[in-house]
Amino acid sequence: MEILISSSVWDPKPWVSGLSKSENVSKIHVWPTNDDLSNVEVLFVWKPLDNGVIDKLPKLKWISSLGAGVDHLMHDPQIPSNIPITRIVDPFLAQDMTNYVIMGLMMHQRSMRTHMQNQRELIWDRITYKPLKVGVMGLGALGKDLAEKLVVLGFDVYGFSRSEKVIEGVKCFDESGLNEFLKETEVLVNLLPVTPKTENILNADVFNQMPDGAYLINVARGNHLVEKDLIAALDSNKLSGALLDVFKEEPLPTQNPLWLHEKVSITPHVASVTTPDSAIKLLLNNLLRLKKKEALLHQVDLERGY
Amino acid sequence: MEILISSSVWDPKPWVSGLSKSENVSKIHVWPTNDDLSNVEVLFVWKPLDNGVIDKLPKLKWISSLGAGVDHLMHDPQIPSNIPITRIVDPFLAQDMTNYVIMGLMMHQRSMRTHMQNQRELIWDRITYKPLKVGVMGLGALGKDLAEKLVVLGFDVYGFSRSEKVIEGVKCFDESGLNEFLKETEVLVNLLPVTPKTENILNADVFNQMPDGAYLINVARGNHLVEKDLIAALDSNKLSGALLDVFKEEPLPTQNPLWLHEKVSITPHVASVTTPDSAIKLLLNNLLRLKKKEALLHQVDLERGY
Repeated sequence: MEILISSSVWDPKPWVSGLSKSENVSKIHVWPTNDDLSNVEVLFVWKPLDNGVIDKLPKLKWISSLGAGVDHLMHDPQIPSNIPITRIVDPFLAQDMTNYVIMGLMMHQRSMRTHMQNQRELIWDRITYKPLKVGVMGLGALGKDLAEKLVVLGFDVYGFSRSEKVIEGVKCFDESGLNEFLKETEVLVNLLPVTPKTENILNADVFNQMPDGAYLINVARGNHLVEKDLIAALDSNKLSGALLDVFKEEPLPTQNPLWLHEKVSITPHVASVTTPDSAIKLLLNNLLRLKKKEALLHQVDLERGY
Repeated sequence: MEILISSSVWDPKPWVSGLSKSENVSKIHVWPTNDDLSNVEVLFVWKPLDNGVIDKLPKLKWISSLGAGVDHLMHDPQIPSNIPITRIVDPFLAQDMTNYVIMGLMMHQRSMRTHMQNQRELIWDRITYKPLKVGVMGLGALGKDLAEKLVVLGFDVYGFSRSEKVIEGVKCFDESGLNEFLKETEVLVNLLPVTPKTENILNADVFNQMPDGAYLINVARGNHLVEKDLIAALDSNKLSGALLDVFKEEPLPTQNPLWLHEKVSITPHVASVTTPDSAIKLLLNNLLRLKKKEALLHQVDLERGY
């Protein structure tokens, strides 16, 4: 089968080299290209997908995102609704995400920003710490992995998801229990998918239901967060701080006040990055399934939006 | 039974209040005091123990450290060798230590110091990261907990201890395998006890056997580390950095060059701090055992030194 890769800012080389080893791959094209694409059946894409690409692929049968996120494909009007869309669900993605969140959580619990400032000023101050209740919003592949591992590490863990989930050691709430969930949550970790229902969900109303001094870790999507509500909650001491890895606009514009807010820690969308090696295994598995006309793994539900 | 508490810089109040609830405790004295101590049978001590205290306790039957460390008691000539010494082994101590080390490990893997510097300069740089092999030196209660949890989090884990241990998922080495252990270790975590054999074990010879760019996390004792060897290894780029929580002299003197070394992160001995609540349960358990003439839990082996 012929494949088109549109990896945008990502280097396409490792993807091409990994995929070309399969006997099921006859040709790999890399967008932008003037190649004849009329026999391409498969499109692998990292955002954004240029306008007009789909028109050049009359035989297109399957689209996969090259990452866990598919929001860039869900609302793209050029994509016909009958083409199955899949995403990368990869144990390393979950593992990397989980470990990053644990780091952020511990840096907050142990006042690491203050310790680092104290070091610069030669101050020896044995700041105490206390146990924290962690609330994980979104209990899909990533949220579940995080919640389970936080239990292993001894945290008191609460979970929130659209439909009720059961995870050992985690007190889980569904949509109707959002208030109860937030009341307990001293550190809120957002791992929800982006859907019309979850957009702007991290807003003043949510922050106000959390205990005073709560902390926010947003590692899902910038569209979940109402930035001005966060800044207001930080400035009023409702929230004590935030670690943000994702933003409405990336790279985060230099004039955005989050950059230099003293209570905000920023990383440039690196919490969990797809590594071609582990993603390619899944893509090749699905390629074989497509050939055999079997159901694709990790297909996105267009109704739910993830 | 009568107890004497010598908690040094720590506030004795929570200890007194927790212990006084037991019917096995008739009286609690707090050092320094002019009380008559001739009926004290039990001494709980955090370092250092003032000279002459033991002389005032003719009926002394048991000494416990108030922390996991007992090096302050092992070499104190005023303590008779026939008095059993115990230490605090507390699941929270191990848990707190493990979580602190995971934080340090992740901050290194994800270049958090650089990200924090980049934030101050409004720089969006998606620094890549790679899997790391972690070597845990010391596989006692703390080292074992760390090694096991690192396996759960997906790290490639190596272990080193005086006598060979078996831990699922961890490649363990004993004394004869130190070279092999070091050759694999990209992040070295020291959780050894302090004994004459392990003093100054973190030295140039050890650093030189590790891969170039390896990272050191010392959370055991300052006496394990030859500070000038560390600084030389950092300055020659043999090691890429170090996170130090413990020091030969604490508080770390302001003129010590570690404070402002650009590759060193310093925290003020806070990786894992005994909380009275959890330690008191163990102390009361041992008090009952002493009364019933049963073997004490977590007694120190004077031969091994831990």
